Amino acid sequence: MPSALLSRPFMSQAALESCRDEALVKSMLAFELALAEAHEQHGHMPDGTSQRMREVLEAHEFDVERIAAGVASGGNAAIPFVKQARATLPEELRRYWHLGATSQDVIDSALMHLLTPRLARIDELLLRCRESAIALMRCHSKTPMVGRTLMQQALPMAFGVKVAQWAMGLESARRRLAALSTAGLPVQFGGAVGVHSGWGEQGLALMDDVAQRMGLATPVLPWHTDRQPVHALATAVDAIAGAADGLALDIALLTQTEVGEVSEPSAPGMGESSSMPHKRNPVRCARIRTAARRIHGHTGVIINAMAQPLERGLGEWHAEWAPLSEMVLLLEGALELSAELLEGLEVFPERMRANLAITGGAIMAEPVAGLLAPQLGVDKARMLASLASEQARQSSEAYSQVLERLLAEQYPDVAGRVSLAELEKASDPALYLGSSEAQVKRAVEWLDSF
Amino acid sequence: MPSALLSRPFMSQAALESCRDEALVKSMLAFELALAEAHEQHGHMPDGTSQRMREVLEAHEFDVERIAAGVASGGNAAIPFVKQARATLPEELRRYWHLGATSQDVIDSALMHLLTPRLARIDELLLRCRESAIALMRCHSKTPMVGRTLMQQALPMAFGVKVAQWAMGLESARRRLAALSTAGLPVQFGGAVGVHSGWGEQGLALMDDVAQRMGLATPVLPWHTDRQPVHALATAVDAIAGAADGLALDIALLTQTEVGEVSEPSAPGMGESSSMPHKRNPVRCARIRTAARRIHGHTGVIINAMAQPLERGLGEWHAEWAPLSEMVLLLEGALELSAELLEGLEVFPERMRANLAITGGAIMAEPVAGLLAPQLGVDKARMLASLASEQARQSSEAYSQVLERLLAEQYPDVAGRVSLAELEKASDPALYLGSSEAQVKRAVEWLDSF
Amino acid sequence: MPSALLSRPFMSQAALESCRDEALVKSMLAFELALAEAHEQHGHMPDGTSQRMREVLEAHEFDVERIAAGVASGGNAAIPFVKQARATLPEELRRYWHLGATSQDVIDSALMHLLTPRLARIDELLLRCRESAIALMRCHSKTPMVGRTLMQQALPMAFGVKVAQWAMGLESARRRLAALSTAGLPVQFGGAVGVHSGWGEQGLALMDDVAQRMGLATPVLPWHTDRQPVHALATAVDAIAGAADGLALDIALLTQTEVGEVSEPSAPGMGESSSMPHKRNPVRCARIRTAARRIHGHTGVIINAMAQPLERGLGEWHAEWAPLSEMVLLLEGALELSAELLEGLEVFPERMRANLAITGGAIMAEPVAGLLAPQLGVDKARMLASLASEQARQSSEAYSQVLERLLAEQYPDVAGRVSLAELEKASDPALYLGSSEAQVKRAVEWLDSF
Amino acid sequence: MPSALLSRPFMSQAALESCRDEALVKSMLAFELALAEAHEQHGHMPDGTSQRMREVLEAHEFDVERIAAGVASGGNAAIPFVKQARATLPEELRRYWHLGATSQDVIDSALMHLLTPRLARIDELLLRCRESAIALMRCHSKTPMVGRTLMQQALPMAFGVKVAQWAMGLESARRRLAALSTAGLPVQFGGAVGVHSGWGEQGLALMDDVAQRMGLATPVLPWHTDRQPVHALATAVDAIAGAADGLALDIALLTQTEVGEVSEPSAPGMGESSSMPHKRNPVRCARIRTAARRIHGHTGVIINAMAQPLERGLGEWHAEWAPLSEMVLLLEGALELSAELLEGLEVFPERMRANLAITGGAIMAEPVAGLLAPQLGVDKARMLASLASEQARQSSEAYSQVLERLLAEQYPDVAGRVSLAELEKASDPALYLGSSEAQVKRAVEWLDSF
Repeated sequence: MPSALLSRPFMSQAALESCRDEALVKSMLAFELALAEAHEQHGHMPDGTSQRMREVLEAHEFDVERIAAGVASGGNAAIPFVKQARATLPEELRRYWHLGATSQDVIDSALMHLLTPRLARIDELLLRCRESAIALMRCHSKTPMVGRTLMQQALPMAFGVKVAQWAMGLESARRRLAALSTAGLPVQFGGAVGVHSGWGEQGLALMDDVAQRMGLATPVLPWHTDRQPVHALATAVDAIAGAADGLALDIALLTQTEVGEVSEPSAPGMGESSSMPHKRNPVRCARIRTAARRIHGHTGVIINAMAQPLERGLGEWHAEWAPLSEMVLLLEGALELSAELLEGLEVFPERMRANLAITGGAIMAEPVAGLLAPQLGVDKARMLASLASEQARQSSEAYSQVLERLLAEQYPDVAGRVSLAELEKASDPALYLGSSEAQVKRAVEWLDSF
Repeated sequence: MPSALLSRPFMSQAALESCRDEALVKSMLAFELALAEAHEQHGHMPDGTSQRMREVLEAHEFDVERIAAGVASGGNAAIPFVKQARATLPEELRRYWHLGATSQDVIDSALMHLLTPRLARIDELLLRCRESAIALMRCHSKTPMVGRTLMQQALPMAFGVKVAQWAMGLESARRRLAALSTAGLPVQFGGAVGVHSGWGEQGLALMDDVAQRMGLATPVLPWHTDRQPVHALATAVDAIAGAADGLALDIALLTQTEVGEVSEPSAPGMGESSSMPHKRNPVRCARIRTAARRIHGHTGVIINAMAQPLERGLGEWHAEWAPLSEMVLLLEGALELSAELLEGLEVFPERMRANLAITGGAIMAEPVAGLLAPQLGVDKARMLASLASEQARQSSEAYSQVLERLLAEQYPDVAGRVSLAELEKASDPALYLGSSEAQVKRAVEWLDSF
Repeated sequence: MPSALLSRPFMSQAALESCRDEALVKSMLAFELALAEAHEQHGHMPDGTSQRMREVLEAHEFDVERIAAGVASGGNAAIPFVKQARATLPEELRRYWHLGATSQDVIDSALMHLLTPRLARIDELLLRCRESAIALMRCHSKTPMVGRTLMQQALPMAFGVKVAQWAMGLESARRRLAALSTAGLPVQFGGAVGVHSGWGEQGLALMDDVAQRMGLATPVLPWHTDRQPVHALATAVDAIAGAADGLALDIALLTQTEVGEVSEPSAPGMGESSSMPHKRNPVRCARIRTAARRIHGHTGVIINAMAQPLERGLGEWHAEWAPLSEMVLLLEGALELSAELLEGLEVFPERMRANLAITGGAIMAEPVAGLLAPQLGVDKARMLASLASEQARQSSEAYSQVLERLLAEQYPDVAGRVSLAELEKASDPALYLGSSEAQVKRAVEWLDSF
Repeated sequence: MPSALLSRPFMSQAALESCRDEALVKSMLAFELALAEAHEQHGHMPDGTSQRMREVLEAHEFDVERIAAGVASGGNAAIPFVKQARATLPEELRRYWHLGATSQDVIDSALMHLLTPRLARIDELLLRCRESAIALMRCHSKTPMVGRTLMQQALPMAFGVKVAQWAMGLESARRRLAALSTAGLPVQFGGAVGVHSGWGEQGLALMDDVAQRMGLATPVLPWHTDRQPVHALATAVDAIAGAADGLALDIALLTQTEVGEVSEPSAPGMGESSSMPHKRNPVRCARIRTAARRIHGHTGVIINAMAQPLERGLGEWHAEWAPLSEMVLLLEGALELSAELLEGLEVFPERMRANLAITGGAIMAEPVAGLLAPQLGVDKARMLASLASEQARQSSEAYSQVLERLLAEQYPDVAGRVSLAELEKASDPALYLGSSEAQVKRAVEWLDSF
């Protein structure tokens, strides 16, 4: 692999440790030993054979470099691994080794075995995100901020709803992946062309047995060129990445110097700039966004490799390995950061409030016009509301006061019928949060429901 | 749109009719009328208002060209549609029109409304595929053909298993999409910034009510920038495309002049070449493969647009529309062809048998070596099996006969202990189909289970 | 095609007109007539034949609907077009029709013919962009604004340099595409399997002749499955889209309510929000960003379809048509908007200046520390610069005054050696624009150089 | 990174060595030292400073693990590298270290520095491919094989033309990349916001100087968020991958057991199957196809990251690193294999000839009908040609003999006027190769022209 310095910042360090070459070798071994046990159970080898294999091979330190060197000629890691293991076994056990299996059985099963604990960790991280999000939502279910569409200030909303949107995305994506991990990632076992050649009807029973021994799910059939399980897994991972990316994009936007409504949690050295001491860069956001982009690229490889010819892919299958394993590590990295963000996010309600005011009340023109419409008619009401916000922005006066003055000047007859208190109420963003609180409540209920 | 001649062959003609501009306008209208009804129900407008709106607007012939011309300035079709409709309504109804809604509410809900019947049709087509596949599987659960890995002949299998692989892919993808359509595509309704500004707690109830009236699902919250529903839908469509593509790739490979094991159903003019009368091109396969590639491209757009800023996408949302609607039409087109292929596929078991023979028996070297190993030891057995297939290929003799002769020549003492009948049996591909029949049985049970 | 309302806002309306079905038919006809002329020139048909064909067929109104209906069975538009044209010709001309050509010759050549004027238009639009950018650059080569990295305020720069960055991107991408259009898009002519079967050595001369007559370039060989020309074209288009997208992203960010440094040109109805009269949405930016995203998706289809089997793609070729033609129309649409943006961009230097101040001078801490370092040492100088900006932000005092006061308080001995004027100079962003002016000059020279 | 066993088979081992962490550190150091020299040249530091830095730092063994550990907090490798180097320098040199540079200057320049020799190697490999292709083309400019469209047998062609198609693709892609490497990959140097803050007009001169010292090209301006150079590089790499993929796809198809017209060069262990001794898998093709797919995925990341906000990407830039460096290593790996394939390809003209015959002459029906048309009229001629090929296929008689017999039976009056020799000639594929030889000649001339 090219310099890890270019990739590492975006992957989970914890996860990397459990996905190194040695771990893959271990998972390949787990498959072969489960297969031997299944065969032994079916009477295809003398009792005790699989146990002896296990003893020899678990004690053996595989020469990973040599396996790596042998990968090129066969095109996958299973071939040199199987050879090295066979050579390690005592002569009399060799004929029972790798019985009825093909390279793809080894690789696919090993990958699923390797990824299973990663999915569990991803779920944990998402639950951490959910928990912190719920806390933020509850805390800010009435904190007014401005909602922005096409990045322009639009109307007020509660900050808790923004967090709810993040949480909904992450949690619905979580449930999608959880459905897959609960069902279990499937074992692969079909032999050379997927029909358990030489093992007849026992083939399927062997497959089911291996699955159980490895803690993997039992597929209906081997799936050498039916890559639906890989597609489902990759796109579920991609969906979570998309949700995390949305969170990171929002936080980065809200952290802009000119906006300043939230800030990444501070941590020693995090986000510092070597040359500009005043800066605190949203580095976690940048890293999450990087991971998401690369995950989308990996997903692109996998969905474009769905059609695999006849009984074995000719590059399509091989092209899945790195993207699939990398995308999981990238996601795990992105979620560690997402959890950090949600757990330590600094929220600045006073900046939210200040930003609500910078248009001089224009964002409240709608409810104000609504208040005045019965008196002035819709058109005049809108015009007055708009003119007042223009003046308020320029003079830095309160919107309600400008409104009162303008009313008195232009519609003295009406002025008396609309009190300043009413104008203040209509132009108070904190009183115009729509269904925000109800949304937070409903979202929390849903989030908590699984 | 650029010349439809370049796109049309890959889309369902039936579906195209139901997705034209007029249909979109109709779906936008369906949303607005449902919204009016919901408001009326909540007492936000006089009784009968929504019914009067319906009468006026369902009788109105919308000027689609004018809507189209107005799209550019607002950036979406809802704005000019809403204007045109409002102008059509009598003065007194106008203030009740589009109440509390934002453009995205209209577009998202209309799209989901438009696509819902398409998903039903996709399900139907997939059930047609499933039915024909099951028939083929049952018919060919023992039909021997050669399995090919990396497109090289490997070992025998039953043709029914190959069909089962196609069917498993299509059906598991079908169930993934069916889960979404059963839950229902969600309505969108949140108003300007997604919090039902001006409608307070009633916002969510309005949203739920609109959903029900439109026959759409109720989301937990509005999902203006939480695009999980779009991701789930697009990737489920993509998975089906991948399955159809696999079927098309296999059929195209098996249809090659030199292989000739299956053929696309013949139909007048289908696959003909203007200049080469002997050719029958696998045109349906080409069209399915085209659709799949373009669907993957559309999926790429959608997954890369998941992170949408704050309360409204700035291009990310807009970029979803065409890909999402086109991918469904492309899939429907591909499935019409897939159903045709499975229903009318011409299968040539004799060519399968002939192809099993062209390596002179080499593909049966494994079981033959297995038969001879107890007598000769593994290594010698393999060498003999390999040498015999070499000679058989060159001489066009039967593999078993060459084996018998070589045995007699090289190992006269062993020769007597292995009969020709045994050799014939060991080298008969039809007797070496592994778990094929059991797989077909198991797959049929699973396919039939939903 | 699905509802054009979903696609049209992002495409050039002008271009759409020239890419409709009729235009494609016209381009297919242009190919066939050029071919007939070439054959006549080579003596393969009686003199005057091609002219008679031209008269008949140019007078003929092709039934596009019937061509469309016939597309499905052959898989491309050339087959039914060729048939309809042949049936239109008088009996005695029919044998000279479509002589030596295959469908792919017709389609590829017609597409290149159709796209050639589009590339010219794209170049024109880019030149318009360049011209306006140069004007903006010259005008703002000293206009101070804050540079932002990771969207955080960093250090000052001139607005002219920002425009220069946009212009450099657009112009280098323009030159990349211009190199292709100057060389010319290639004709396609190779016959059934690309070797001019039946025409021997004359094949290449015929190909060259057809190219010249159509105003297309002469390829070295037919390129039925060597899709380098398509890859080069699509990725050059994609590069321009990327440059336009960058422009749109920057403008959208600078247009944010809280930033307000530039604004899309105002135009009647453009960017208005139906419900929020105070908003002016950056709709052009959204439309450009949409087009760019969809172009990237189309590029994805094309690059994933590069490997085409043997002498004709089996879906890979067909999958190019719509993406290639759509991406050009999308780009043309995006560039019309980019030109509008650059020609009418509203620039607010006073907002830029105000934004430079909102950190209380923190962004000038670097040069201030540089000024003080010789007196205080680097570390103390930095600390003081930082503390002063903190206080300036809170008190809204001028940074230089706070600095002066703090100096006097903390380092009275040094205070006398650093004048307020010096402090003002060091903390004036307008005096800290680095190479901005030189960059604008250099960029203008380069931009003007082609 | 996840298990290298999953990635390594597809990358160049030679290249991997030169792209490890240490190499990146070395390239970052090369940038910083060039920068110091440039500053010294401009009088910004005492004479000899840069030389002393070089001595200290080239002797220093960088602790890569510690750099890696520091990557996360700043988000890139430059920050911890710069820190470690600064700490290594003697106190008095530290203030001259990393002067005026920002992290992106270091990383972008280092990457371009790292990739430059890789591009040279890619060019070499492509020249090796070209040379072998030319030899094959010359050798087989008249070797008849069947051309296949939509994978169906169509008409004869020379094998040399097929090779020419591969060579044209590879060579035109090579020239596209060579244009970039000849111009040179650009240095990056702009400082914090790209305007050489603090260095005024000298900034550009410094940039140019650094470029020259590093052997990189001088950009017009810094290109922190104008990513055209990266787009041009990535898509040029992608184009070569597409060409190699086409070669691999064709070879894999022609290697199919049933086709057998070419074969990958044999090499010990290469393509062997652990369980099926008769197989020789086209493993190189599979590996090339894998690399191409993954390269396309990486390209997807890069083109979707073109729009980078303001003065620094927020993830978009970071997302380029791994894809860009990996795609080059993948391509280099794919080209090593492509060169091997072209240099050692086994070609079986007799199998080509045999395959030309398997339709019983149907592929020659066109010229045969052409021969008979003057006697029988076009329709009857075609029917006879078609009927004869049907019978020839069934009887395994020669096509010409069946034709002669049928002519005699059905059109006795015509029979005398068409000799068997004429029929043999018209039905001889070797005489119907169109412009094949001329194409090979023309292609060789073009290939040799650069």
